[in-house]
Formats: sequence, structure tokens, C-alpha cells
Amino acid sequence: MLSMNEKQKKTQKLRARLPRGFVDRPAADIRAVDEMVSKIREVYERYGFDPVETPLFEYTDALGKFLPDSDRPNEGVFSLTDDDDQWLSLRYDLTAPLARHVAENFNEIQLPYRTYRAGYVFRNEKPGPGRFRQFMQFDADTVGAAGVQADAEMCMMMADTMEALGIARGDYVIRVNNRKVLDGVLEAIGLGGGEQMNTRLTVLRAIDKLDKFGPEGVRLLLGEGRKDESGDFTKGAGLDDEQIGKILFFVGITDYAESADALAALVAGTARGAEGVNELNTIRSLVLSAGYEADRIKIDPSVVRGLEYYTGPVFEAELQFAVTNEKGEKVVFGSVGGGGRYDGLVSRFMGQPVPATGFSIGVSRLMTALKNLGKLGVEQVTAPVVVCVMDRDIESMGRYQRFVQDLRHAGIRAEMYQGNKKNFGDQLKYADRRGSPIAVIQGGDERASGVVQIKDLIEGKRLSGEIEDNVAWREARAAQISVPEGELVVKIREILADQAEDRKRAG
Amino acid sequence: MLSMNEKQKKTQKLRARLPRGFVDRPAADIRAVDEMVSKIREVYERYGFDPVETPLFEYTDALGKFLPDSDRPNEGVFSLTDDDDQWLSLRYDLTAPLARHVAENFNEIQLPYRTYRAGYVFRNEKPGPGRFRQFMQFDADTVGAAGVQADAEMCMMMADTMEALGIARGDYVIRVNNRKVLDGVLEAIGLGGGEQMNTRLTVLRAIDKLDKFGPEGVRLLLGEGRKDESGDFTKGAGLDDEQIGKILFFVGITDYAESADALAALVAGTARGAEGVNELNTIRSLVLSAGYEADRIKIDPSVVRGLEYYTGPVFEAELQFAVTNEKGEKVVFGSVGGGGRYDGLVSRFMGQPVPATGFSIGVSRLMTALKNLGKLGVEQVTAPVVVCVMDRDIESMGRYQRFVQDLRHAGIRAEMYQGNKKNFGDQLKYADRRGSPIAVIQGGDERASGVVQIKDLIEGKRLSGEIEDNVAWREARAAQISVPEGELVVKIREILADQAEDRKRAG
Repeated sequence: MLSMNEKQKKTQKLRARLPRGFVDRPAADIRAVDEMVSKIREVYERYGFDPVETPLFEYTDALGKFLPDSDRPNEGVFSLTDDDDQWLSLRYDLTAPLARHVAENFNEIQLPYRTYRAGYVFRNEKPGPGRFRQFMQFDADTVGAAGVQADAEMCMMMADTMEALGIARGDYVIRVNNRKVLDGVLEAIGLGGGEQMNTRLTVLRAIDKLDKFGPEGVRLLLGEGRKDESGDFTKGAGLDDEQIGKILFFVGITDYAESADALAALVAGTARGAEGVNELNTIRSLVLSAGYEADRIKIDPSVVRGLEYYTGPVFEAELQFAVTNEKGEKVVFGSVGGGGRYDGLVSRFMGQPVPATGFSIGVSRLMTALKNLGKLGVEQVTAPVVVCVMDRDIESMGRYQRFVQDLRHAGIRAEMYQGNKKNFGDQLKYADRRGSPIAVIQGGDERASGVVQIKDLIEGKRLSGEIEDNVAWREARAAQISVPEGELVVKIREILADQAEDRKRAG
Repeated sequence: MLSMNEKQKKTQKLRARLPRGFVDRPAADIRAVDEMVSKIREVYERYGFDPVETPLFEYTDALGKFLPDSDRPNEGVFSLTDDDDQWLSLRYDLTAPLARHVAENFNEIQLPYRTYRAGYVFRNEKPGPGRFRQFMQFDADTVGAAGVQADAEMCMMMADTMEALGIARGDYVIRVNNRKVLDGVLEAIGLGGGEQMNTRLTVLRAIDKLDKFGPEGVRLLLGEGRKDESGDFTKGAGLDDEQIGKILFFVGITDYAESADALAALVAGTARGAEGVNELNTIRSLVLSAGYEADRIKIDPSVVRGLEYYTGPVFEAELQFAVTNEKGEKVVFGSVGGGGRYDGLVSRFMGQPVPATGFSIGVSRLMTALKNLGKLGVEQVTAPVVVCVMDRDIESMGRYQRFVQDLRHAGIRAEMYQGNKKNFGDQLKYADRRGSPIAVIQGGDERASGVVQIKDLIEGKRLSGEIEDNVAWREARAAQISVPEGELVVKIREILADQAEDRKRAG
């Protein structure tokens, strides 16, 4: 690093560049996310959740243990040492900080503690297409609720959220599984016990690849191993055909009701498996009672989320409509969020068990989905009216300033042209590129007669092929009119209303 | 750092603690800030500004030069090296990242570029009372507007923002100064030129202490030096009495109109000073034209913001009502934001000058002020209706779940009790501490007759000393009623409306 003075001495200019894996957010995205977040918030509030937020930094040790898919606590997160030599990290999700918050304030917090939060999280990973190092999550969590009715509620809340965002029933599904059932299956095929931990991890990683490689790929990963297209070989879990068959049966269940008996038989004799099946049945029964059929909330044993993180029910919100991917293929849009029960996360800090469940929405990904569906930005923001600067003497400037303020105080978006282009045409070009609906013009002649010119910029741009019966109505509107100064606000309000009517007619 | 496995082996529990200088934000603060930010946003939008946001990280060199009050670019900011050895820093304000954004996208951006953004900024400083290392700013900037009409607009926008937030005229003032005038004064008293740079810096630092030490303290700092209460001596600028007198005259001007001639005489002969006075006069004239008198926007030469950062007009939004500080003294609340012209910030990256002006609101500080004024949280959020869990068989749970969902789908905040307390009294205690307006109860007897009990928890808590003519009306409301299951939603809506009416009557 150069000191400031050394830098000043260097005359070479700095290169302006975004750090790798980070993006600037344009107005349309910000408005779309705001719209989306406020709809989600409305659902969470209705479900009796209240906001609470934590800072972006935590002490690294408070985050370390549950870093997803990594044995190295310092990788994957952005970390630095504080001046008292303690390690700080930027949060990589919103769950670990919530756990710290609950543990730190345990005596003041009333359980069950029902909260939500939206915020940025950070991953210190290699950026790639659509893979950013800062992104937004929107989480809801219930801490201190041991029963799966809390998990059932999360699933219903996810379903309601999808519909509140305009996603039609049938275009989304909340898939539910239970880690305990999976553990029961593994135990039933002889993979229980501490000495089998590594094999179990290999099996879990294999199942997690079901979407990517299909059942045949997973079969290889469960058995001898799999060679990918580039020739790289991934060693498998080394299971025999019977073991593999049972796992593939389990993750292949598509109709839970139909397969429930076979599943119960599969995990029979394993306490954990029986408990898991029982929990799944309870969730299913509760959501059905409240009117959520399998087209909205579906028990689906192929869901495997978070290898070490979750301790019971896990769920995933999946969008089922097709989109075209970067290779031009039609694919199902896929997951936009998920969660589950994480009974271990708060208790790390405590001398007692603290059950918890929650889910997290990937805000950017969901925004992309909603844009695909045309469900965002329906309410367009009107660009400001531009008051042109025809004369630059202080008195004229003062008058333009007053026009603008009059419009603003009447609730109309407006701005005085602030650039240095003196030419009227250049100023109109600015207004046009800005998407302004109207330009206001007053030169010396108009000033002398106490009038202003109002130019309807949308009228000017109007396309030819219009609906027949609108023609007469439209012709009544002139593209430019002259009105007394005192009528400026009223007239502009009128034109804006006409333009809004036009947009409505045009659909 | 311990690896995950080593950590798992250690059975000692982690200590849950916030990093120093960071805070968790409770629901009331989050809602207050949301309310405030949305009102500010409305004003900025009306002024024709659009949102744009940058990420929290920038390359350190893009931030380095304008680090406030520090010759050491790596102090004051949180920095770390990326895996390609480039230095990254968390932004310490929203202006430097905007400058990078504009420079990086200069060919696509249409000037003048009018944007706003709210976001967290970070200071790697010693935390203290009310001094945090993460806080929120809300900025607006116009890039590519050279004329002071853009600065005048910023001042009017700040004034309108204060009023939109409910701060009465007279309780705030936007103070305006110009760095060029100050430079002119310094030149006029013989402190111009490169060899005097250090003396000038000492003078600027002295003036900046006017609020803290008063004119007599500043007089010492401009002369021989000042000894503080602890006995520490700060060496002064070493000016003579005539020089000091002129500076104190300048920063002591309270009525600009009255002192304008004397000021013009003071800077006479310095090109920069004359330019500055001329700019101040133009701003004054423009805001007066638009109806902003000196009670809202006031030229005030004692404003010194940013020693190196600003290049022309500077402004500060000050709240003038008195509050009691931690020592029990009545003091003026003071600054809640400020800004000015920073023509050098974008051009660092460019081969050409790019003028810019903007201002920044300190969101947390402004929130504190508004809370003092009772201007936030007027619209209270109603806590959720709690449906008690009297029986835990799956069928009863399903029915409670359905009650809750019916309420939610009718737009009423509601939750089923998710804790493990089976005792009815404990569940009511939960609802009470939660501030719930209503509890819904259905035990075996009620279920058999198809009814539910609705308990009005606000009625129960009602204080005695009530307005006379409301008594009869209130008595008509029972604290607990029994209704058929099918009337649950309608009846609860009714009670909530009654409670809202009560709150309204109680003012």
C-alpha cells in the first residue's frame, strides 16, 4: 500500500473496477427486490414472525463449525484479525449469527422465538457465472420449538410466500424429507455406528448428486465409483447391490402415500428411522388438515440438504416451470430456497439443548425466477419531468428552480436540467434517454408573455399501429402546448394522467 | 484457528458474543428505520433520483485516497487480501464506491447521473458509546453537474426530507458554506501557496473544533496553542492577532446577508475567494426563488466538512431542538447529515474532470432524533393472535393449525403456540409477554360442542382510569366469549377492530 502522499505524487490514474465476484445493482433490480422483499415480509408478519437483524461480522469461532461442505473453517469465508487479535468473519449465512444472537440473549428472549431477517451474506469462493461472493438471503426461524408442527408451519409459510409472489399453484412445490429417515435407512443397511462415518458421508454426497447425475450416476457413486466426461474418477462408497437398491428405492420415492408402508418396513427396527417416518407422517397430516395438498407440500425422500447441519425435517422450495438454460436446453427452474431443523446450532453455545427450525430464500435467484414469469416490475416507475434550462442568468434559473419545486411539492417527479449542454436539442435528448414523460420549456419569448411550453415526450414517441377506437381520442392530444405559468402543475398532472390511461389501454 | 474436527473434540462450549462495536437490531429499530428510509426514498424519487447500489467490498486502492482524517490508507477500514493477492476493503462510505461505479461505467452512463442508495458502511475504529463500526448511510448524488444549481437542489432536498420525516420548520436548518471562500480567506491573510499547506491544515482542524471548544478555544488553536483539561498541550497554528481576528470574523458570521459585503471585502483580490462568494450568492438566490428562506437553508461560514474531500459548496443538516445528553445537559441535537461538492473523486479514475455533488444522511443518528421527537413508530404493529394448544393428539393439532391458517389467509397475524409448555396458564403467559391481542382456546368440551373460546387479552389488561363516556361502550365488551368454529375469523376481526378503536380513543 502506498501512503496518501506517495499516491498523490504518482500521476498515473487509478483503474476503476469491481472486485471479482461482486456486482453493482441497477435501479430495476433494486426496485424488483424491494417489491419482492416487501411481499415476503407481509407473509412472514402474518405468520406472527418479527424482524431481528445481526451485524455482518461475527467472531470466526461462532461461525466455524457449520461451514457448509468444508473441513477448513477459514476457507469459504472472508476473515480478518481485529486489533485485539481476535478473528472476525463476514457471515456466510443468516442462521449461524441468529444462533449466536439467541444464545447471547437467552435470558431476555421468550421462547419460542419467531423472527425473520433479510440481509447480505458472503462466500469467499471462486466466482463464476451467476455465482457471486455477496448475495441476499431472506430467512425465517423459530427457536425453542421442538415439535414438528413448527416445521409444518415453515412449509406452509414457504407455500404461501410463493403464492404471494404471484407463482401459480402447480408452478412450485415444497418438498419435505427427514434426515432421521435417511439415517434409519443407512442403519438398516448396516451403515450405522461411528466406524462407518466416512462411508455415510460418501453416501450422502452421492445422493446429493441425484439431480446432477441421475439414478445411474448415483448408483456408480454408491458402488465402485464414477468416471466423468473428462476422465476424472470419483471413488464410490463401495456398497453392494442390495444396499444400493435400498438407497435408490428410498430416494426414488415419488408418491409418499403409496410407498409409506414399504419405507416403514425398510427402516423397521431402527429407532431413528421410525422416529423420522413418524415425523414425516405428522407433518403430512398437519399440512393436509390446513388444506395444503401434495401439489403444494410434498413428502419427497430425494431431498438431501446440508450434510452436517440439519438434524430432522428438511425442506426445499422448488419452482417447477421450465426455463431455457445457457446451453439452450429446457430445464426446470429448480430450488429457490430451503431449510430444516437444526437442533444443534444454538446449543453449541449453551449447556442445554435448544431446538430450532427455519428456512432461507435465495433472493437474487428468486428474483430471476419472478422476472422470467413476468411477475416483477409490473408497477412501472415514471421517470421525472425535465424542466429545461434555456437561459442561464440567475433570475431565469431561479424561475426554473421554482417550477421544479412546485411540481415536486405537488407530488410529481421532476428535475431541472443540471448538465452543461446549453443547446435545447441536447437537453431534450437527455430527457428522452432518461425516459422522461414531459419536458417544460421557457425561453425569453415565453417568459415575456408569462407562459411555459409543455412537451409531451411520450406522445412524440408513440408508435403507429394503434387500436382503432383510440385514434380520435389520441388526436385530441397535442404533442406540445403553451399554458400560463400558473397552470403548469395542473396541466402536467393532466398529461401524466392521459399517459397513464394510454399505458392501461395498451395493456 | 482450530480445524472443525479439533473443535468437535473439544467439548467446552463456545462463548456467544457480539464482536466489539457491532450491535444486533431489535424489531422496533428495524421497523423504525424501514419507515424512515421509505419516507426519505419518496422525497429523493420525487426529486428525480433513481436507486443504484454497489457491493460492500471495493479494491482498497479505489478507496484509499480519501480516507477521512488519516494519512494511513489501511487504518480506519476493514481490509483483507483476496486469493489473487489484491487488497479488498469494506466501504467506509457510499461516495467512494459510487465514484468507482461511475468511472467504470462511464460510457454507458448518461450525465448528469442522479442516484441514491442506502447501505451499511464500516469503520475499523475503536468503538465507544454511540460509536459503532457498522452503520447505515443514505446518500444522494448528482454526477456530471458542474453548476451550483445542483448544490442548491441538494440543500432543498435535505430540507424537504427533514419535513417529510415530520421535523417541524424551525427544528432543523440546512447550513451552507463553500470551501473556496475559506481558501480565499486563508489566501487573503497570507496563508496561500504550497509552502503553507501544513499551516492551512492546522487552521482547518482548529476551525472544525468550533462546536467543541467555542471561539476562545479556536483562538488558542489558531495562535500559540491550547492546553486541555488533562494538561495535554495542542500546538497552535502560530497566527498573529490580525490573522486570527479575520478567521474568527469569518467563521462567526451568523447573518450572511448582513455580513456579505464585509466578507467580499475580506476575500477581495483572491480569485478563489471571489468565486466562492459568488457561488454562495447564487445558491442563496436560487433557494430563495423556490421559497426556501434562511429559516430552512442558511449560509453559515462556520461549516467546515471534510478537510480534503470537498472542493466547493458544503452543507450540513442540523437539528436545532434540545435534547438531554449523557451528562444531563441540555444540548442542541446537532448534525444528522451533510455533504458537498467533490469534483475530484470520480476524476481520479478518469483522464477528464467529472464534477459531482451529494449528501449523506446518518440513518441511525437521525432515527435517534426522530424517536426523541416521537415521530417514529406511530403506526404500531399488532402482535399475532395466539391459538393455544390444549390437546396434542394429531387430530387436535391439525384443527389448531387450520384455525391459524384461516386467520392468516384472512390477513390476520396469527400463530399456533409452538412451545413445549402444556399448561394453559403458561401458554397465556407467552401470549401476554408477546403482547398478543387475543388468545384462541379449544379443549375437549369446546371441541365436542363445535365452539372456540376467544379471550380478549387487551380487555383483560385494561387500566382503570378511563374516559367517562367510554365506560358503557367498554362494558359491552366481554373479556372472553364462546363462538361457533365457523365464526372464528369474523369475531376476531371484530374484536381487533374494537381494540383499534380503543387505541384511537386513548390517543
